Amino acid sequence: MTTPLQFEQWSHAMQSRIEHVLTTTMPADTETPITLHQAMRYAVLGGGKRVRALLAYAAGEFCGAPLAHIDISAAAVELIHAFSLVHDDMPCMDDDDLRRGKPSTHKQFGDATALLAGDALQSLAFELIASNQLSIEASQKVNILYCLAFATGSRGMAGGQSIDLESTGIKLSQPQLAHMHALKTGALMHAAAMMGAYTAPNADTQKYQAVDTFAKAIGLTFQVVDDILDAEADSATLGKTAGKDAEQDKSTYVTLLGLNTAKSLAQSLYQQALAPLEAYAQEADMLRSLASFITQRQF
Amino acid sequence: MTTPLQFEQWSHAMQSRIEHVLTTTMPADTETPITLHQAMRYAVLGGGKRVRALLAYAAGEFCGAPLAHIDISAAAVELIHAFSLVHDDMPCMDDDDLRRGKPSTHKQFGDATALLAGDALQSLAFELIASNQLSIEASQKVNILYCLAFATGSRGMAGGQSIDLESTGIKLSQPQLAHMHALKTGALMHAAAMMGAYTAPNADTQKYQAVDTFAKAIGLTFQVVDDILDAEADSATLGKTAGKDAEQDKSTYVTLLGLNTAKSLAQSLYQQALAPLEAYAQEADMLRSLASFITQRQF
Repeated sequence: MTTPLQFEQWSHAMQSRIEHVLTTTMPADTETPITLHQAMRYAVLGGGKRVRALLAYAAGEFCGAPLAHIDISAAAVELIHAFSLVHDDMPCMDDDDLRRGKPSTHKQFGDATALLAGDALQSLAFELIASNQLSIEASQKVNILYCLAFATGSRGMAGGQSIDLESTGIKLSQPQLAHMHALKTGALMHAAAMMGAYTAPNADTQKYQAVDTFAKAIGLTFQVVDDILDAEADSATLGKTAGKDAEQDKSTYVTLLGLNTAKSLAQSLYQQALAPLEAYAQEADMLRSLASFITQRQF
Repeated sequence: MTTPLQFEQWSHAMQSRIEHVLTTTMPADTETPITLHQAMRYAVLGGGKRVRALLAYAAGEFCGAPLAHIDISAAAVELIHAFSLVHDDMPCMDDDDLRRGKPSTHKQFGDATALLAGDALQSLAFELIASNQLSIEASQKVNILYCLAFATGSRGMAGGQSIDLESTGIKLSQPQLAHMHALKTGALMHAAAMMGAYTAPNADTQKYQAVDTFAKAIGLTFQVVDDILDAEADSATLGKTAGKDAEQDKSTYVTLLGLNTAKSLAQSLYQQALAPLEAYAQEADMLRSLASFITQRQF
């Protein structure tokens, strides 16, 4: 079993690693069009827990992929996540001025540039995987690209955001809420893990299956914990505007179940995430530790 | 040489074909999330000249690809084009209420849904190419995906839009204007033709090169003609708000060169587009006719 210290060291190492990958693969902020590239880098670099990148690294290593091959998948999924935050914060969506403890991208660069920066971050994610910066088989790339595109689109993240929009002011049932979050947050976290796994050249089907089941449960755990944190935390701890959910009359696990039942649900989902890893010893330790981190995080 | 009637028949056939491909490959408007899928279909179906699809079909056939294989590349590039129009029309960008003779997507569905619909259309383009709906080699798919992603992003279309934003109210030089348009409009038209070409299993390098040179020139021709039409036409003919460029104090070929010189430039670019096709007989006829159509179009 990984100790908390070992996990902390690993996650810090991977966070530094992905920051370096993103810093060097994104267009420089001295390259024309400068404002757009500045906005893209502002939206992506220097912040965030990089949970999706950690999922890609942990799942990729579990399946036997070399770290250097996982880098681009991890970067791509972080680019998609960052693009979704930029658009989500815009006035016509959540209208949020604060992100990762600093002004959100549209507050810093204006709405038009934020819109374009989000669009271009999405394209860049696909471009990086298709580019020769990732040296794996073309068939693996196609799997990874399909997985990411599907998770990003109307049957994934964008679909979840749309259901979220439509359900503001409406009390959702728990299955409806779970469905919305499975798309809005879960799809991309699931994709992150699968993209890491698909980077491995010859993993067995059972391992892919384990990552698949693990990632679905942990994606939902993440969202339940997010709702709990939003209800409990203040903005300073959270690095974004707290209490927005209640203010915007959105259905959350806390408004639906109450705080205590939401906390029990997070624990039970965490156990569901661990179950498919039971067949594996040390090789699954980092996935287990990551699941524990996601469940117990305070920010 | 193709007669004008033959070209008209071909382009009508291809327009019907791409409409059918888009209608059947996009998520149904009865599929959850319904509003998002309705907005996506509204933005894409039932309108437009489908110039980018025509470029993919003509270049693909020139290189020897079967039509059925070009369909998905043609659809993907139209999805990207439609997404760019949805975002471009939004209040924080060009704030345009009219598109293809009907209310623009954000006027019909609201800004938030339009934003998400644009985002999801972009993902769908990449998803379709990576999916098993396109039966070509994985290495060809990766080429096509890279080509499309690059053309869509900050070094392509989004970059051109950003330069356009920044240069409003500034008088650009002709090289600066050409650079902006090479990115804003040219990149995706070039990609359309290259994606068609890459769909062919075994085209020779010389043919790829000819498509490349042709597509760069015709992309610029398209934009010069667009500027001329914007300056000359009224909204009813154009199907979108006319005279917006002058109203928004944007640099165009007409404001820079005057109407007559802009028309001469369009003719000269048309000749540049034809040059690389001189080595080819009948097989390049449709590309030649398409170039003529793009140069002489009245809408």
